[in-house]
Amino acid sequence: MEINLKPVARVKNSRTTSLDDEWGAIISEIILAEDIPDNAFQHILDFSQLEIIYYFDKVKENKTQYVRRPRGNPDYPEMGIFAQRNKDRPNQIGLSTVELIWHRGRSIGVSMLDAIDGTPVLDIKPVYKEFRPSVEIRQPVWVADLMKKYF
Amino acid sequence: MEINLKPVARVKNSRTTSLDDEWGAIISEIILAEDIPDNAFQHILDFSQLEIIYYFDKVKENKTQYVRRPRGNPDYPEMGIFAQRNKDRPNQIGLSTVELIWHRGRSIGVSMLDAIDGTPVLDIKPVYKEFRPSVEIRQPVWVADLMKKYF
Repeated sequence: MEINLKPVARVKNSRTTSLDDEWGAIISEIILAEDIPDNAFQHILDFSQLEIIYYFDKVKENKTQYVRRPRGNPDYPEMGIFAQRNKDRPNQIGLSTVELIWHRGRSIGVSMLDAIDGTPVLDIKPVYKEFRPSVEIRQPVWVADLMKKYF
Repeated sequence: MEINLKPVARVKNSRTTSLDDEWGAIISEIILAEDIPDNAFQHILDFSQLEIIYYFDKVKENKTQYVRRPRGNPDYPEMGIFAQRNKDRPNQIGLSTVELIWHRGRSIGVSMLDAIDGTPVLDIKPVYKEFRPSVEIRQPVWVADLMKKYF
């Protein structure tokens, strides 16, 4: 089974190369693809948060290591690819929960998006409170260390 | 630009037709595709929540209405497709934040997944606390009404 997708939008921001950290200052514009009508964003400002699903188009295909230490850091354990968010993964899909700042016509402005300039966007969904986990999130200790300079 | 993806796993559960509500009782098994090695799930139980990105393979392509009232309900406003989570959408991608219950070899068990039996899974990511929005989620009033029998 093969699934064929097309970008619905593109990311525009000031980050042109892939870097691990310091995404906090970056505001991104997400611009609709030509074949998507303007009204696809109608009333989007009713929501404060969005989920952005995007495609790591700069990642070389078939580079996936199914088990690896996150960021290659010898202090972290060997985790399966589905137990980490490393970008070298099957299907090369990225996902960020972002804050919506503005909407003007065919563009929205967001923060907290960790995708570089030109990244193809596959989908945009509003965050519904009812889908948020109600229980405490449990995660291994290395995550806090890995994330300490991320935003 | 065309993007070609392959399922990394499949959903197995008791729901064989698309229904809007009452997902709360459903426990799903997610089984790795044949070409994905077992160790892709290594240490996944270190995490309590996962994000499951899947493909609405039963949705007819090109059925997208770019503006519509959620569930066709005349009481709800006309929202752009990126301001609602309706499954008839460009690229037919679904996304659920699920609770991880168990892991055995090539399978995991999860709750809160609103995908039917046989659904192809495109990616699985662990939830990191640091990516959760720190501010209150704002959403329009119709969302709570739409979601009242969902789980």
